[in-house]
Amino acid sequence: MDLPGKIAIMGGGSWATALAKIVLSTQDSINWYMRRPDRIEEFKQLGHNPCYLTAVKFDTNKINFYSNINQAIKDSDTLIFATPSPFLKQHLKKVKTSLKDKFIISAIKGIVPDENMLITDYFAEYYKVPTENIAVIGGPCHAEEIALERLSYITLACSDIEKVRTISPVFKNQYLKNSFCKDVTGIEYAAVLKNVYAIAAGICHGMKYGDNFQAVFISNAIEEMRNFVDAVHGLERDITDSVYLGDLLVTAYSRFSRNRTFGTMIGKGYSVKTAQLEMEMIAEGYYGTKCMREINEKYKVNMPILDAVYDILYEKKSPTTVIRQLTETFK
Amino acid sequence: MDLPGKIAIMGGGSWATALAKIVLSTQDSINWYMRRPDRIEEFKQLGHNPCYLTAVKFDTNKINFYSNINQAIKDSDTLIFATPSPFLKQHLKKVKTSLKDKFIISAIKGIVPDENMLITDYFAEYYKVPTENIAVIGGPCHAEEIALERLSYITLACSDIEKVRTISPVFKNQYLKNSFCKDVTGIEYAAVLKNVYAIAAGICHGMKYGDNFQAVFISNAIEEMRNFVDAVHGLERDITDSVYLGDLLVTAYSRFSRNRTFGTMIGKGYSVKTAQLEMEMIAEGYYGTKCMREINEKYKVNMPILDAVYDILYEKKSPTTVIRQLTETFK
Repeated sequence: MDLPGKIAIMGGGSWATALAKIVLSTQDSINWYMRRPDRIEEFKQLGHNPCYLTAVKFDTNKINFYSNINQAIKDSDTLIFATPSPFLKQHLKKVKTSLKDKFIISAIKGIVPDENMLITDYFAEYYKVPTENIAVIGGPCHAEEIALERLSYITLACSDIEKVRTISPVFKNQYLKNSFCKDVTGIEYAAVLKNVYAIAAGICHGMKYGDNFQAVFISNAIEEMRNFVDAVHGLERDITDSVYLGDLLVTAYSRFSRNRTFGTMIGKGYSVKTAQLEMEMIAEGYYGTKCMREINEKYKVNMPILDAVYDILYEKKSPTTVIRQLTETFK
Repeated sequence: MDLPGKIAIMGGGSWATALAKIVLSTQDSINWYMRRPDRIEEFKQLGHNPCYLTAVKFDTNKINFYSNINQAIKDSDTLIFATPSPFLKQHLKKVKTSLKDKFIISAIKGIVPDENMLITDYFAEYYKVPTENIAVIGGPCHAEEIALERLSYITLACSDIEKVRTISPVFKNQYLKNSFCKDVTGIEYAAVLKNVYAIAAGICHGMKYGDNFQAVFISNAIEEMRNFVDAVHGLERDITDSVYLGDLLVTAYSRFSRNRTFGTMIGKGYSVKTAQLEMEMIAEGYYGTKCMREINEKYKVNMPILDAVYDILYEKKSPTTVIRQLTETFK
């Protein structure tokens, strides 16, 4: 396997667009799969993604667009998946081409709904990709700030660490640094949980809890995350590393975070349905909450924050009551 | 020793005022030492502190004011010190009364300048207070939010944990929860370091580093804090507890933080002198930076953030160059 070979971006959203910008800063050209041909046409005409990160200009001569996912896969060696997790399954349903000999990088922060599987496990189990050919990208990295070329850091993880070491220069430029490790599973779970916690942070913010409380909340959230990740995957890790704590912070504190915004609306009294209608992007943590709750039925880790968010979003319990009870568990 | 006995607040700033409000929510009356008699007179006339947290109304019938520190000490059993650390020494110089039989609580987040000693060590060494009678209050707790009665959490630490357990109901009401532990030294160092890191966070913010970077910064800062505290005081502790991580977060992220504001001005190009003149409150981290740098000459812990802040504030090195070098050490 010659890494990275030809790189494809799989998906047309804001994170996919940011990744395309990054990869084009180090590679001569990319393949780019987007589901909708009309969007591709518009992209070519405008010289930028018509819907996301519209300020980022692209030299479209360096992009081979595909609306046919099988052709995109055939023509590529390294596939970077960056679709929202709720849509991954329907994208992959169309795949008839083998993924066995491809290097898969998941930039998806989420879980495959219904299956309650990590993205990387889904590729391994259903598409027979060897685990040593599956990597994840994690870290505190809002696409909007990549667009602005503000210094950011990502972490690449793969069970075969030499492979991510080889591929890491693809993701290194004047506004992006990276490090690598083996903790694929831990990073994936952390990335799902931080969305849940960002919703919780938003709910508390919407209910007028202040900065002091927010800081206490984050401390308790990172400890809940550590307890879960350590329980499900006994690798040595430092939960304060930026790929875990930093990612939680940027999501729970940042104005760019749609999960936090969604939570804030819930905390202000919007129903889940109204909050979803008001927002144009999907708050992945909404699905993540249900998945994680179901996954944790097996592990039975004490997760009061996850339970609180679940009770508010899915059991329609009163945020006032649920959050007040939650505050009793904090220290 | 009958705890808490009569409680005195020592100091007239915003944190002292917040603590007075808290203690009066659980006690019938307090003693309150303030240096300036004119301020005391004004306080009595207005029914609130004339300079800090002016929206907090007090029933002055429940307050015995003292401008004589010795009389305040004589009349009290538990003394809560809440002066800014740079002024503690000059307050204490006036003390002729024995502190030996008093219970001392330090709510001071700082170090005794020149001496480079922790506040609690200073009381133990120069005022012969037995260490089991010295406690600290820590945690993410901006005075401004106590004034607004927004739910907050503090941690009380004392080598004799039964004493802080006994005294803890004093600091527990509908907007304040607390926990306790033995880590006096760790909490004190963490409280000093977080001010240094808040200045650094401000500097980066002033230089237009974004949210992604801020999250990476905090991750690296908490690891630097852990490395130092673990090196100087080998007690088992969880650096993600709110008294460490939470306190760092509230200081480094909050708009109420004067250390962050000071740093932001430096990052925007103000000189140290100009930034200090523009601000009406003291940024304790300015002094803390020098103290910690000198203390670390003994321990030699790798502390790139501390060193960077020191180089900018005291060696007048260019923030642009120093921060760029610092970013190379992050992951």
